[in-house]
Amino acid sequence: MGGGVKVYGVAASPFVATVLLCLEEAGVEDYELVGVDMAAREQRTQPYLSRNPFGKIPTFVDGELTLFESRAISRYVLRKYGRTSASSPTTAAGEEDLLREPSTLEESAVADVWTEVEAHRYTPAISHIVRECAIKRLIPGGGERDQAVVDENVAKLGEVLDVYEQRLSRSPYLAGDSVGLADLAHFGFTYCLVECTEYGALVESRPGVRAWWGRISARPAAKKVAAMMNLVLNPLKMPSA
Amino acid sequence: MGGGVKVYGVAASPFVATVLLCLEEAGVEDYELVGVDMAAREQRTQPYLSRNPFGKIPTFVDGELTLFESRAISRYVLRKYGRTSASSPTTAAGEEDLLREPSTLEESAVADVWTEVEAHRYTPAISHIVRECAIKRLIPGGGERDQAVVDENVAKLGEVLDVYEQRLSRSPYLAGDSVGLADLAHFGFTYCLVECTEYGALVESRPGVRAWWGRISARPAAKKVAAMMNLVLNPLKMPSA
Repeated sequence: MGGGVKVYGVAASPFVATVLLCLEEAGVEDYELVGVDMAAREQRTQPYLSRNPFGKIPTFVDGELTLFESRAISRYVLRKYGRTSASSPTTAAGEEDLLREPSTLEESAVADVWTEVEAHRYTPAISHIVRECAIKRLIPGGGERDQAVVDENVAKLGEVLDVYEQRLSRSPYLAGDSVGLADLAHFGFTYCLVECTEYGALVESRPGVRAWWGRISARPAAKKVAAMMNLVLNPLKMPSA
Repeated sequence: MGGGVKVYGVAASPFVATVLLCLEEAGVEDYELVGVDMAAREQRTQPYLSRNPFGKIPTFVDGELTLFESRAISRYVLRKYGRTSASSPTTAAGEEDLLREPSTLEESAVADVWTEVEAHRYTPAISHIVRECAIKRLIPGGGERDQAVVDENVAKLGEVLDVYEQRLSRSPYLAGDSVGLADLAHFGFTYCLVECTEYGALVESRPGVRAWWGRISARPAAKKVAAMMNLVLNPLKMPSA
């Protein structure tokens, strides 16, 4: 299953990490992560641009099909491979931990709402914090941290997470009782925030959000992708408290 | 059909306009547009916030279901009401102009790619131009146009539209032969750019993009929503050439 699946990018990119997480969750075992030399701007040159005309990572190939935009890729992976996952884990409480497509129009709509919230409320704030506090240090000539940008986005992310806290005090996952793309799409940036910046308290100080992040990050697939990210991120990791 | 459907917002908002377009395309005739007093920041106060905790427009209610985020709403509207549209128009060439959900995994994935491109490549650039050149003039105390922001985003949008031009020289719509959400989601901001700013040439100077926009804006549903937008935008409209 998944023969011929290739992901072009680097695992430390939060957008790539989300795609890898969906592949792991769906039980696709034989995909290939094809490195892209970001320092040499390989993604802005041919032949990369022939696969992804916007020159961003990740790009995804499955046989004859080429896709870009991480959320579109993730949706496809879960639809094509997620339904027949051979490895639905069982939770401590003995419930089957299904990663399933929502089955009703209303369930789908609520899942879409929270996937859009991730894209348009959460990630625009958290990505600035992660970029300033962690990614700039990884890039030769990445420049100095702009603390004003950090402060502005810490405030914005706090407001977004206040809404999440209300939501997650009523249900274990953003779209309801089952984990789904709406949750998984938060993985890459949240992992970087908690592990590589001093702003993990934004997550840790809110009990509902903290428990939700605990459930996501404890998933076997999340641990596997975190290990792939760590190969690059390790020098940035915060000392454990 | 559509009894009990309410959209909270103002038609001149490009995000609201996209939702209205999807309702009109789906043949929902009896929805209600409930005005929100943006000048008084009604969207940031109760009871609005109880329906949409992020305080943005639009918010959408269909019976017991409340949704926010325009693209999630649009997807739901097309899924629920679009399939049984009583009013599939016929094109000049006599082909039925179906607004249908993609039917295969691959078609869905390609449609998702271009919907994500709209959200993450197109709208982030065009929205700055429209805000600086048009929306600021509508808002009392909205401030002066920042031409540096305009210039930066005109360049960005030009690069994005160069990719669109390549794509649209090969197929009439972004996701292929049929119009879909990937196309419709561009309506609100593109209408404002072409009608209310001096940067319409970004669209008009590219033959494939111009023909695509011509097909979208000529749709009866698009004309109806444009008329609703014009009630507010008319003072801003550019003189015809």
